Amino acid sequence: MKAVILAAGMGSRLNMKPKPLLKVGGIEIILRSMKLLSNHVDEFIVVAGKFYDEIKSFLEDVPFKHRIIKNEHPEWGNGYSLKLAKDHVNGKFVLLMGDHIYSEDFIREAIRGEGLIVDGKPSYIDIEEATRVKAVNGRIENIGKGLEDYNFIDTGFFILDDSIFEVANRLPDDVSVSDIIRDARLRVYEVSGYFWTDVDTEEDLKKANWLLIESSIKDTDGLVSRYINRKISTRISALLINRVTPTQMTFVSFITGLISAFSLLFSIQAGALLYQLSSILDGCDGEIARASLRKSPFGGYIDSIMDRFVDFLFLGILAFMFPSSLLPALFAIFGSFMVSYTREKYKVEFGKKTLEDRTKYLIGKRDERVFIIMLFCLLGYINLMFWIIALLTNLRVLLTLVTVWRVEISEGGKR
Amino acid sequence: MKAVILAAGMGSRLNMKPKPLLKVGGIEIILRSMKLLSNHVDEFIVVAGKFYDEIKSFLEDVPFKHRIIKNEHPEWGNGYSLKLAKDHVNGKFVLLMGDHIYSEDFIREAIRGEGLIVDGKPSYIDIEEATRVKAVNGRIENIGKGLEDYNFIDTGFFILDDSIFEVANRLPDDVSVSDIIRDARLRVYEVSGYFWTDVDTEEDLKKANWLLIESSIKDTDGLVSRYINRKISTRISALLINRVTPTQMTFVSFITGLISAFSLLFSIQAGALLYQLSSILDGCDGEIARASLRKSPFGGYIDSIMDRFVDFLFLGILAFMFPSSLLPALFAIFGSFMVSYTREKYKVEFGKKTLEDRTKYLIGKRDERVFIIMLFCLLGYINLMFWIIALLTNLRVLLTLVTVWRVEISEGGKR
Repeated sequence: MKAVILAAGMGSRLNMKPKPLLKVGGIEIILRSMKLLSNHVDEFIVVAGKFYDEIKSFLEDVPFKHRIIKNEHPEWGNGYSLKLAKDHVNGKFVLLMGDHIYSEDFIREAIRGEGLIVDGKPSYIDIEEATRVKAVNGRIENIGKGLEDYNFIDTGFFILDDSIFEVANRLPDDVSVSDIIRDARLRVYEVSGYFWTDVDTEEDLKKANWLLIESSIKDTDGLVSRYINRKISTRISALLINRVTPTQMTFVSFITGLISAFSLLFSIQAGALLYQLSSILDGCDGEIARASLRKSPFGGYIDSIMDRFVDFLFLGILAFMFPSSLLPALFAIFGSFMVSYTREKYKVEFGKKTLEDRTKYLIGKRDERVFIIMLFCLLGYINLMFWIIALLTNLRVLLTLVTVWRVEISEGGKR
Repeated sequence: MKAVILAAGMGSRLNMKPKPLLKVGGIEIILRSMKLLSNHVDEFIVVAGKFYDEIKSFLEDVPFKHRIIKNEHPEWGNGYSLKLAKDHVNGKFVLLMGDHIYSEDFIREAIRGEGLIVDGKPSYIDIEEATRVKAVNGRIENIGKGLEDYNFIDTGFFILDDSIFEVANRLPDDVSVSDIIRDARLRVYEVSGYFWTDVDTEEDLKKANWLLIESSIKDTDGLVSRYINRKISTRISALLINRVTPTQMTFVSFITGLISAFSLLFSIQAGALLYQLSSILDGCDGEIARASLRKSPFGGYIDSIMDRFVDFLFLGILAFMFPSSLLPALFAIFGSFMVSYTREKYKVEFGKKTLEDRTKYLIGKRDERVFIIMLFCLLGYINLMFWIIALLTNLRVLLTLVTVWRVEISEGGKR
């Protein structure tokens, strides 16, 4: 299947850059769509107008098969852009707006549809500016910006087949896609409630950026992460996402962690606060990676290993400074490791992505440990802190083993 | 597909137990075959004779669908047993001897064949006692024990179809399977060089037991494991395999490890020797599990977690006893842990079973670490030992990271 991307817009009110090349959520709008569609689409047909050169040069570095067509009359309306794609597609194809931002969830659902994908309850766009659709019996009755009587919003995403060109050719060249599909009485397919949007103002851009980061939060977060760290890390990510790579953030958080550990030698309080800061920053790489579709196994791998090293260094230096607490310190270091190890090894042996929900509510995840360590360091109770972390982590490990035993032996095979 | 298992033999020379119910390599001969065939076969037809009651009662606990038929005239020869299976199979079916031991590799190849599975170079059986086959143009010309002119050995494993019963019915009731297939001029299919055998004497039993354990050794072993530990652990496994479960062996090795750590408080030398003993015993659970087809994810999971705990306890107690070595001790504990963690986490993130061969020759695996620790403890160089383990393990971790970087980034995607 091929996809036609209409990118012949006349430029945005934002700046003189073509909208499809604006970075939102860490990635150019058009590239996000291409990445998300790349599993379903084998070639992209991009129709560009005024910004043909910029878009062409941008696409040169893009690893997806594509062809770029020049629309010499972008002022005629986007229907003419669609017409230009006629000779490059056959059978079923996807049509989408190059300046709309679609989320992974939206595309996953939309790709299964047929006709115009419409949204019945759009939460993320400005209804005033939106193209409204009146559908009757699953087909378009009317479509347009000012429509008073409407039941859906046009998402700018279509699953068409080449019969649309017969309709298009009956109409004059200076029509819009809306005119063509109204005339075709195209089917509508509802995909409601997922994030997609069109950006027109600086405000829209910021909002879209923020929503993409917010939706990239993992649902396996611990309590401290959920109620404290994420509130801060997402704001940092939103500020930085269009400027840094996830790997850079991994190293920023790692370096902060190293500094926090060595700061202990000068001030326990400063070290503790920096440790908590590194834990907050530790959320940013994942947020940026997921929001900008740059999540990678190597990123996850190196991030988790650096976490282990920072934890070891922080607790190890503290153990050195308080040798009388060596016993709980060793168990705290061991337990902190084992929380991760028992979880990862479980995935390896049982080939599952996560352990059952039962461990989800156990306290002792990294965000929670770091926070507790910080609190007790600030209060000066180092020995007590070691005991608490030792107990908490080793208890969590024990409960993990019991859970695995229950899940896999009671309900699974026996050895 | 169904499988017919001939288990109407008149009893062995070994003892009065029916041969199919003898435990070899930790599992009854007939149950091994059933387990290995269970992915290919949906019902087992077991023909029993003199030992019908024993076999029937044994099969009651077996989790595979089966039907047991009584042969009232086992003295007539095993051809009559085959005839009795006629009404219970249709189309293609497997026929095998209930008293033969087949390895996983043999069955994997044999199941793809057609006709009589023959072995051109049997390494594990007594040619004098074996049934010899003369095949010409892929079909049986002659078959029998005393045959002078032969090119194959009968493995007692067949892939037949129900046309064999037409031939069988033309022959008298007191014939052997050999007589029937000779008359049918059955096809032969060569599967050579894999372990399979028939056991007649105590000697045979021991040999088969040993071969099954030897072939269960993992090829990811470290140097110490390969040249020292396995020589001893396989002998222990061979002695115990028909008496203990893998889980019991896991606990024996774990308890030995715990004792070794606490022994340090009384004698470093005794502790060190016991630690090495626990490392040797640590091989037995896996050997027994694989040889007896009882390998389980939970077994692998709990075994590796107990290893981590024993290592931590041993090095932790030593660190306590030699507080001046705390710095290298902490890094030795950390590095030992990270050797496992970086390997397991790699499997999780990249969905691969093992890291590339490149890390295979890095020293620092558990068997090697334990051996080095033992040596230096015996010599009394505790501080040096901690430094060596700290360097060795952390170097291995570093090289693992570099390898992952090379394999996954140079050759894979980029973040």
